[in-house]
Amino acid sequence: MVKDIASLVGGVVVGDPEIKINRPSRIDEAGGSGSISFYGNPKYEPFVYTTEASALLVPKGFEPKSPIQATLIKVDDVYAAIALLLESFGQKVERPASVSAQAVVHPTSSIGEHVTIGAFSSISAKSSIGDQSILYDQVFIGENVQIGKHVTLYPGVKIMADCIIGDHCTIHSNVVVGSDGFGFAPQKDGSFKKIPQLGNVIIEDSVEIGSNCTIDRGSIGATIIKKGAKLDNLIQIAHNVEIGENTVIAAQTGIAGSTKIGKNCLIGGQVGFVGHIQIADGTRIQAQSGIMSSVTKPNTALFGFPAIPYRDYLKAYAIFKRLPQLNQKLKQLEQLLNKRDDTK
Amino acid sequence: MVKDIASLVGGVVVGDPEIKINRPSRIDEAGGSGSISFYGNPKYEPFVYTTEASALLVPKGFEPKSPIQATLIKVDDVYAAIALLLESFGQKVERPASVSAQAVVHPTSSIGEHVTIGAFSSISAKSSIGDQSILYDQVFIGENVQIGKHVTLYPGVKIMADCIIGDHCTIHSNVVVGSDGFGFAPQKDGSFKKIPQLGNVIIEDSVEIGSNCTIDRGSIGATIIKKGAKLDNLIQIAHNVEIGENTVIAAQTGIAGSTKIGKNCLIGGQVGFVGHIQIADGTRIQAQSGIMSSVTKPNTALFGFPAIPYRDYLKAYAIFKRLPQLNQKLKQLEQLLNKRDDTK
Amino acid sequence: MVKDIASLVGGVVVGDPEIKINRPSRIDEAGGSGSISFYGNPKYEPFVYTTEASALLVPKGFEPKSPIQATLIKVDDVYAAIALLLESFGQKVERPASVSAQAVVHPTSSIGEHVTIGAFSSISAKSSIGDQSILYDQVFIGENVQIGKHVTLYPGVKIMADCIIGDHCTIHSNVVVGSDGFGFAPQKDGSFKKIPQLGNVIIEDSVEIGSNCTIDRGSIGATIIKKGAKLDNLIQIAHNVEIGENTVIAAQTGIAGSTKIGKNCLIGGQVGFVGHIQIADGTRIQAQSGIMSSVTKPNTALFGFPAIPYRDYLKAYAIFKRLPQLNQKLKQLEQLLNKRDDTK
Repeated sequence: MVKDIASLVGGVVVGDPEIKINRPSRIDEAGGSGSISFYGNPKYEPFVYTTEASALLVPKGFEPKSPIQATLIKVDDVYAAIALLLESFGQKVERPASVSAQAVVHPTSSIGEHVTIGAFSSISAKSSIGDQSILYDQVFIGENVQIGKHVTLYPGVKIMADCIIGDHCTIHSNVVVGSDGFGFAPQKDGSFKKIPQLGNVIIEDSVEIGSNCTIDRGSIGATIIKKGAKLDNLIQIAHNVEIGENTVIAAQTGIAGSTKIGKNCLIGGQVGFVGHIQIADGTRIQAQSGIMSSVTKPNTALFGFPAIPYRDYLKAYAIFKRLPQLNQKLKQLEQLLNKRDDTK
Repeated sequence: MVKDIASLVGGVVVGDPEIKINRPSRIDEAGGSGSISFYGNPKYEPFVYTTEASALLVPKGFEPKSPIQATLIKVDDVYAAIALLLESFGQKVERPASVSAQAVVHPTSSIGEHVTIGAFSSISAKSSIGDQSILYDQVFIGENVQIGKHVTLYPGVKIMADCIIGDHCTIHSNVVVGSDGFGFAPQKDGSFKKIPQLGNVIIEDSVEIGSNCTIDRGSIGATIIKKGAKLDNLIQIAHNVEIGENTVIAAQTGIAGSTKIGKNCLIGGQVGFVGHIQIADGTRIQAQSGIMSSVTKPNTALFGFPAIPYRDYLKAYAIFKRLPQLNQKLKQLEQLLNKRDDTK
Repeated sequence: MVKDIASLVGGVVVGDPEIKINRPSRIDEAGGSGSISFYGNPKYEPFVYTTEASALLVPKGFEPKSPIQATLIKVDDVYAAIALLLESFGQKVERPASVSAQAVVHPTSSIGEHVTIGAFSSISAKSSIGDQSILYDQVFIGENVQIGKHVTLYPGVKIMADCIIGDHCTIHSNVVVGSDGFGFAPQKDGSFKKIPQLGNVIIEDSVEIGSNCTIDRGSIGATIIKKGAKLDNLIQIAHNVEIGENTVIAAQTGIAGSTKIGKNCLIGGQVGFVGHIQIADGTRIQAQSGIMSSVTKPNTALFGFPAIPYRDYLKAYAIFKRLPQLNQKLKQLEQLLNKRDDTK
């Protein structure tokens, strides 16, 4: 019932608290009676007045501009409330923990309590898998790897030798952790000699990594993803990069070798970072930007290629769009001046 | 013989229709006698006069500027003719349909008629695979997945729980369908709480998806790829995105959450879309562009970062390249004006 | 001992040649006594004076500005010396060569001497694997594939039918070689008809390819990666592309169909190339650039979107950043001129 959900998320009911709710729905889809939806992003306000959902999570300060059919639950933070709500709907059916008869586990490796290992997964020598962890099918664990507790590795994940994964990490399908960094020494004949990549990757606790990311091992020392960092899909992390605590990176961003990114940064998609720079804590970077030098001042917002302060880029780009007219005007002024010269 | 091919593709022969043809060749390579090549892209016109191929598919209106040795077959649409022609050359040898003894199929799943399942593939509980479908090796099918008829899943494809794939779809190696969307609620201590991703992915009929793409499940509701859409390699599709019918997307493009792209769009490579926007039918977007707001007018051509109308971007960029000179000229005018002030 | 390392890398010792060295370390980390580090990139000079490493590789011409505790080894080329040094530290323990009992090898395929094939790997019909090659776990080799000698294929690599891999190649995890090129002929109803992709991929000797790259087969003829080329992670190579000898490409770059890149090029990350162009030998391209036309002059440096000569882009962008001020100045000049008109 609405009142139970309100109590779960710490919200205030405006409307009938006795309505029954049995599923979540999107505000812009026909969720129908019995569903609960939410309004967080102002772009979706028109749907607030037309949704068929029986209940709506809305921000505390929300004042409707038209009548609303749904019962409202007003909350301090809509997205935190959604997380709680979906968690309650989404309690996953637990798989029974078991090691598939079609998995290969090297006898020198140790497997914790209540661990699941799927079919066609390989655990190489001298590795350890912590309690309660789930390795889906077709996962590869190299030699001397440590996997923490409560870790989920989805199908096709490859963790190469010597890498360390903390507790409560989630790594999505086909991610590669610990492939060789891109290091080659140019030779006199124009060819390149591989520089051996002897380091590893350390992923701290509570990190989530999206599908098909690639995280290279350090050449010497470690590539480090710190506690609580969240990476979206198809991200490239080069050798000896460090990602700070609770930093969030959107899809398809690439970070070149030895660059160190601070904590609590928000980095958009398709951003590129050159190597060997430092990015201050709390830096926010707009999607597709190119970061070519260190950012020393915390909480800076950047945009552009190469990136400059966010507002400066927008202002400059606003003029860029009118460059043909600006050029035209400059020509006219020039002609005007020249004409005056002539007529003097 | 040339006349058979002309009949197959509905073309008109200019030259000897009795020449024997036994293979296709590229116009810019030494295809040699007995091969048939084609001329579609004007960049390759010089090769028309030097090719050793015995026959050439050319557009109906093509008028040679020099003598050509090859017999020509004039067609309405060169690329459609090539598709027909290559199909006739490329009739694949059928594998015998069989389920590998090294595959694992859960007893609650249903496998259609004449289905191939390769070694080390897993089919989880309560899933179904339609008739005539081919799953190569090392494929993963999660629980409660529906795969249509005449579907090809190449090695390493991962289809996570609850996703639905239509008929006649082709999904290339190491694609991940149905990984979690990137949804986290910020907490007061700076950390992030995962928002459970409870939706799925629906891929309609006749969709092709290139290698190593990632298509996230909806957080609530579905991520949808509509009928006939074609995706190149390494593309990121976030949660609750919709891709319209027959829309074509080139490699490494990324689309953020809840964005809806219309039908018949042509989207270049490495394009980025922010979340929560709508893109009108028939929109054409130049490679590497950044789309930061909705496109409401159908058949618009866009370019830039952020994207603006294609021609406007080219015109502005033409001036951008001359900005140092423009700046110089502005300074000169200023000095000239100041000097006059002085000399007054 | 330091003197042994100096002899290995052909360097000159400045300091105590008898110090014992047992491991490499990074100059910006607490490597500690007994470790050897290196100084190559000027950004790291401050660490030269504070490192705890016992020895340091430095460029021959390096003159310290403050006292240094470490013994120095002066070398002609720091990076070549590191490669040699790390190689000596990183001598890999050889796995015994063996074909896993959990691998599937088709009886018509030939396996060379001293070959390793890991668990859950499949070798399809009529393929050959050269001597001393290592295929890790979960690798897929299609029909009629040729793999050379001393090749390493990491877990999850997929090599599709008819492709050819030369000697001494290294291909990292989850790379896909030989997926279909992206070729579709538009039909009158707005849908697309697949153009069969009948070619293959040829990878010459000593090529290295990073994790999760995708290299499509030619539609007709081959996609070719020439001898000694090095590709970083998540790179897209479309059908019929050619990459020249010893060309180096950083992560997430994409190259569209039929583009031919010369030898000895250095290409940054996230660069995009349109199709059907030629890039001259020795071209250097800054990260995130967009290459929309052929580059005919060798050894050109390019930057921008679309790319122009590197220095021109930097100069133009320097003015771009000041466009709002420039626009302001233009307006003032205009007003000044207009006022004079009024006051005349």
